[in-house]
Parts: sequence; structure tokens; C-alpha cells
Amino acid sequence: MVPQWIIEKKRDGAPLTHDEIQAFVSGFTQGTIPDYQMAALAMAIFFQGMTPPEVSALTRAMLESGDSIDLRLINRPRIDKHSTGGVGDKVSLILAPLMACCGLAVPMVGGRGLGITGGTLDKLESIPGYRTDLTTEEFVHVIGDCGCSITGQTPRFCPADRKLYALRDVTGTVPSIPLITASILSKKLAESLTGLVIDVKCGTGAFMRHRKDAELLARSLMAVGRDMGLPVSALITRMDEPLGRSAGNRPEIAEVVRAMRGDGPDDLMTVTFALGARMLRLAGRVQSDAEARLLMEEPIHSGAAESRFHDMVRRHGGDASFLADPDHIESTSIHSVQVAAPSDGWVSRLNAEDIGRACVLLGAGRAKTDDTVDPSAGITHLLKVGESVRRGQPIARLYANSPARIEAALSFVEKAYSFTDCPVTPPPILLADMGVNQP
Amino acid sequence: MVPQWIIEKKRDGAPLTHDEIQAFVSGFTQGTIPDYQMAALAMAIFFQGMTPPEVSALTRAMLESGDSIDLRLINRPRIDKHSTGGVGDKVSLILAPLMACCGLAVPMVGGRGLGITGGTLDKLESIPGYRTDLTTEEFVHVIGDCGCSITGQTPRFCPADRKLYALRDVTGTVPSIPLITASILSKKLAESLTGLVIDVKCGTGAFMRHRKDAELLARSLMAVGRDMGLPVSALITRMDEPLGRSAGNRPEIAEVVRAMRGDGPDDLMTVTFALGARMLRLAGRVQSDAEARLLMEEPIHSGAAESRFHDMVRRHGGDASFLADPDHIESTSIHSVQVAAPSDGWVSRLNAEDIGRACVLLGAGRAKTDDTVDPSAGITHLLKVGESVRRGQPIARLYANSPARIEAALSFVEKAYSFTDCPVTPPPILLADMGVNQP
Repeated sequence: MVPQWIIEKKRDGAPLTHDEIQAFVSGFTQGTIPDYQMAALAMAIFFQGMTPPEVSALTRAMLESGDSIDLRLINRPRIDKHSTGGVGDKVSLILAPLMACCGLAVPMVGGRGLGITGGTLDKLESIPGYRTDLTTEEFVHVIGDCGCSITGQTPRFCPADRKLYALRDVTGTVPSIPLITASILSKKLAESLTGLVIDVKCGTGAFMRHRKDAELLARSLMAVGRDMGLPVSALITRMDEPLGRSAGNRPEIAEVVRAMRGDGPDDLMTVTFALGARMLRLAGRVQSDAEARLLMEEPIHSGAAESRFHDMVRRHGGDASFLADPDHIESTSIHSVQVAAPSDGWVSRLNAEDIGRACVLLGAGRAKTDDTVDPSAGITHLLKVGESVRRGQPIARLYANSPARIEAALSFVEKAYSFTDCPVTPPPILLADMGVNQP
Repeated sequence: MVPQWIIEKKRDGAPLTHDEIQAFVSGFTQGTIPDYQMAALAMAIFFQGMTPPEVSALTRAMLESGDSIDLRLINRPRIDKHSTGGVGDKVSLILAPLMACCGLAVPMVGGRGLGITGGTLDKLESIPGYRTDLTTEEFVHVIGDCGCSITGQTPRFCPADRKLYALRDVTGTVPSIPLITASILSKKLAESLTGLVIDVKCGTGAFMRHRKDAELLARSLMAVGRDMGLPVSALITRMDEPLGRSAGNRPEIAEVVRAMRGDGPDDLMTVTFALGARMLRLAGRVQSDAEARLLMEEPIHSGAAESRFHDMVRRHGGDASFLADPDHIESTSIHSVQVAAPSDGWVSRLNAEDIGRACVLLGAGRAKTDDTVDPSAGITHLLKVGESVRRGQPIARLYANSPARIEAALSFVEKAYSFTDCPVTPPPILLADMGVNQP
């Protein structure tokens, strides 16, 4: 196996064999194939694409680069939800305990934020004491005991993906559907799921800006999932404006607590319930979305979802008492300012990308993988498209630990908004239900 | 300057600015931009190409990565010839002393062979004592004293090109016209030439297999040369069969000695005189090819070219007495065998690529950059397309230092040939004269 011959073959548009892909990924993971050869191959894949059998082979090679988590002793449907990432997307934090209350096991190996996209692990770590470095044994125990756990990757969890993702991030090879597909599915397959629901984000605040690309990615994930024997259900949801009214780590935790008390913003709850319904249907717990909705509303009304969340936080070493007061959770930074509406009218646009950039500037996100994240920084009280506003009324509240950071973020928040004199109908948040594959 | 943003810009088809290219090349040369980012950029360039101003900026950045050789004190036209590489191409060794006899200064910084392509430095080093590691001062002195010198790159000579070429070789990014153009011209510009003649090889034994690609490369070299103020003249010549009757290091030196005695094979001499004529015209020494031919024949008939070659060899520390007997030069290996024609007929095909591979197997070439080369290995007495042959008559003689190497090479030599019952007209060796740019 001469690595450059494989690169040349892909460069010239020929499909690679299973053995070639396996040898390349395994050499890369072990370090016998250097980063520069993998970078060249990734760029050739960006341009030439991969056939479905090639993507399956890549997914399998990455899955087999490490150890799978054996959850077969857990006698419940093991369903995870994955989002391709966006601004203000805190759905996983609500869904994990909610689905656990509905009888599912939810084993979530989460990721960190990068660029404008927030990370579930960063949000959880903003709760004092919360550990995202559980051992595999601890992870399995927490799922067994409380039905859900959200933790980070262990060193033996898909090492090929971790190494390749870091390389793609600095070589301009992130937005490749075959590479995204293999990255997501190799990790999800290592969780030994019985079903996966994918939220493909589409819009200015997402990797996939166009509906066509989002559909291609959804189809790719479903096709490879089928090939690997994993039932996959995919929704495409709108990510032109942030999801909910908050972005940043503690600001989002505060919104999650309110959502679990039945007080979540409409768009956030619509997406949460839609994805939850697909999870329950994949698990065979319900036959219809209406039935799923009834099942999901009960633990919210009863408070069971919130106490399940507290339970998970405690089992991860976190201080659940921190979660008592959402107003307190979102206001732990030294500085905060309110942004006022410049005129009367209706919000016609709230650009997710600008809000995401503002969050990075406030300290809530990472420009580079080794940046540290400020748990208290972020934005709350965002108005959403279609809402009316009067001049001087708040359209956002910014939190940071230095006035300079707030100063830097302000102009992004201001330019994120457009207003109009006429009422605006908010566009639908659910763009497409791609259905379920049939392994 | 964030390297991945530059990679992404090129990946998405946007032209890079002069400053972006300069910063990337300079960071790569200094090691602040890692190999994997350059590999990704090179692959993006392979797919997206570069505009002429981008190629000029890349050429300039690579030129400025090291020191230029100051030859302005040499009061003659400084003209070099560059070949894009082929099998049996020993033209430089004849042209350098021949052009020196015609009043030009020929400063040649040569390269080593890789794959089926031979290297001028390897051929010269097969002469006992010949040094290819002259200092810049020695190089300038030899040119001043005898009109020509052929040496290797010093560490300060285009370090960006040396580093990038090694990387391209292992990342499938060699056959990119912008990258080839910048690689050739940055080195030639560092020789402070007043003119450059390019022999773009086209055929089965060359990088450029198709006439269209060869023309694109010639045009790219001429356009960037014009932009950089360097007069460039380009010919496209056929490289479907080896040039001349020999391939390998000493076998080619023997053919060079015969050629300088007026006994060179037709195709070799046709290419040599055609390129020499362009050099003399670029130098303003002649007005026509006919005039150039007369000027070039004189030093061959008089023996001046051969003694100039001896002079250059001696000034490089080489043993010129080794060059006395071509029959001896080509037969210094321990083993040799003759390959016999399988039938009567005419040679209808002699595949340069197969002969090149046979040479590598005999030990005359390199499969990898760090392989060593056997000076005595190679092939002589090749028959050329259009020549008639009788069954049992020799069609090649192979030289190597182990019977196993000869055994391995034999099948390649046999399959390189095709024969036919009908007379064959040899195709022309000069495919196109691309003219001269006008800086």
C-alpha cells in the first residue's frame, strides 16, 4: 500500500476499495501515514466525493480505530440524537433527561464548540463540578442508573475521528459530506445504539447553508446508517436565527431549566418535541407524533424531567443546586449590558452567524480548538423574527467578564438584527422530515 | 494570516492575493506553516488551478525564499535550457559545452532522477570525481572560465521549491501546471538568466502525456516568464520512445561523447540542434535556424565542443580521461545481456515508460528520493521506431551489477517493443514550436 497511489487514485476520481480505505485510516491513526498525506487525501475527497460503499468503509475504518462502548446489557432502546451544530442549540440538554423519563436509554458522547457553533460539553461544564471525562465504566453506570449521560470522548473512543477532525479543522476540509458522514456515524456507532435521530441544521448559522446540501447530508447519513445496520431518522431544521432566546454556556443552561419547567421558547420546544417524537418512534414507544407529544409533556408538567436532569448532573459530579434559579444562572458574569431597539417595528431578520460571532467575542466560544471558554459569557433575551418591538425596548442582553469584550460584540449583535414597519410571519422551524432509513 | 482561510479560499475557487501567497510560502519555508496545510493547499491548487498573476506571485515567493546567484558580471548572454524530463534525455550534457563554444554562458542548476525520469546530476556523477556540490562562488568561477557549469542546488537555492517538491512527490500533487511552472521558473530565475529555452516533453515517458497539457504548460511557463521579465522560448518534443539509443547514467554519457564527435542518433541531434538554435536566437547570436545550425556544427566538427566538455568536467573535479572511449564508458557493469529481436520486421513502437521502468530495475534510477543510483547500470543499442530488424538481431543491451536486476528488467524491455511486417515512418520528434514570449 503506497499512500500516494491511493491519494492519486482518489484525486483522479476512482473509487477506493475497502482495503485501501482501511489501510489508510489505520496507518493514519497509528502515525505511519503522516498528517500531510491525510490532508491531501481529505482535500481530494472534498473535490471528488465518495460513493456510498466508500463512505461506509471509511465509517467502519474509523469506528474500528478504537473501542466501542458495550451497552447491550442495558435493557432499553438506546437512542441518541445528534445535531450538526448551530447557534443556541441546547436541545440535547433537554432531550436526554426527557427521553430517559420516557423509558429510553440516551448515551450521548458530546463535543465541544468551535467557531460560532456551541458545544454541549462546554455548556455542561459551565455547571460547577460537572465532569465530562467519565470513564467508559462510569458512563455505562450513569446510563444504567438514570437513563442518560452526556460525556466527552475517551482516548480509545474513535481516535481516528479525533485525529482526522483536528486535521480537517486546519486544512479547509471540514465541509465534505462523506467526511462529515463518517465522522458522525463512526462515533454514534461506537455508542452501540439501537437508533439515531439526526437534526441537520440548515441556514446562516450552520455548516450547511443551503437546503440542497442539508438534504444531501441527511441522505448520506441515512444511507450509510442503513448499510451499517443502524436505524437513522433525519429532520432538517432552520438555523438562520439562533434557536431559542439565548446563546453561550450558562445563558443556555438557564434556558434549558426554564424549558424543563414548561417555559421554553416556541422554536426551541418545537424542535425538541419533533426530535423527541422521532426518538420515541424509533424506539417503538409510540405510533404517532401526537402520542409522543402526550408522553413527553407529562415529565415536564410533573417536574420529572427537571429532576432527572439534576440527577444526571449530580452523577457527573455537578452541583445541582446551581440549577435552582435560571435568573441567577444567566447572570454570573461581571459585566452585562442591554441592547435597545433602534426603532418601533417587527424583527424581520436575526442573523445566527452574527450572534455566534458575538458569542465568540464575548468569550463564550472558541476561535481555535485550544482557546478556553468563559462559562458565564453569552447573550440572553433575544427577540425572534416576527416579534414586535418598541424603540428603546431590549433586544438582547450581553454578558462578559471585560467591558472590551462587550464592546467588541456589540456591533455584531446590532448588525444581526433587521427591523421592518410591517408585521412579519416567522418562517417554519421544521424544514423537512427526511423519514427513517430501513436497515 | 490564518493558513486555513487561505486554503479555503483556494478550495472555493477564489484567486489568492500576492500577500497571501507570499505569507503562505514564507511560513512553509520557515516551518511555521506545517506540511499538512501546504499539502491541502497544493491539492486545492491541483483542482482549482491558479490565475497567471497567482502563478507569478507563487514563483516570486519561491524565488525569494532563497538567494539568487549573481551572474551579472559575466559579460555574455546567460541562457539555460530546461527539460520537463523524460527517458534518455541527455541533451543538456551536449548543449552546455556546445553553447559555451558558441559564446553563451550556460549556468545550469540541475536535478536528480526520480521514477522513470533520469537526472542530469546522476549522469554527471557517473564520471569519476565529478562534483555536483559546487559552492555558489565555484559555480560562478567555472561559468566565467569555461562558459558552462552543471551543478546541484545549494541549501540557499530556492529552499521553498526543494521542500515543496519533496512534499508534492508524496501527496499526489506533482501534475499541476501552476505548481510545475512555479517550481521550474523560480529555480531558473534564481540563476539570473537573460533567456530560457524550455523543452516540454510530451508522451508516454513524460509527465505530460497529452499534447493539450504540454501546450498548457508551455504557455504557462511563457506567460509567467514574461511577467517576471524573462524571455522564454518553448518547444514541445515527443517522448513516446526514449531519446537516442541509450538510457541510464554511463550509457548516456557514452552517447553524449559520441554525439559530440558527430556520431549522435538522429532524434537526439534533432532535438539538441532545435533547442540550441532557440538558445542562440534568444541570445541574439543568430537570426535564423539555418545560421544557428552552421554555428553549432563547427565546434562539433572541430572537436571544440568535446574538449569544452572535458574542461567543464575537470573544473568539477572529474576525470576527463574516463571520457576517452565511449565503448568503455558504457560497459563498466559486471553483468550485461543482449536482447534479441523475436522476428523480422520493423519497430512500430518503443515504449519510453517501459524502458524507464527497466532502468529503475537495473539500478540506474530511483523509485524513492533516497534510493542510491548505480552509475554503470542502464541500456544501450536501442532500436528506434521505423528501423528494420531481423530475427535474433540485438534490439537492446542491458547492464547491471546483479543477474537478478537484469532478469527483472528483461520483461519490461521485451514488452516495450512492438514490431510489424510493414515499413513504418517514424513520427516527427519536434511536435510544436510555441515561439518566444516578449517580456
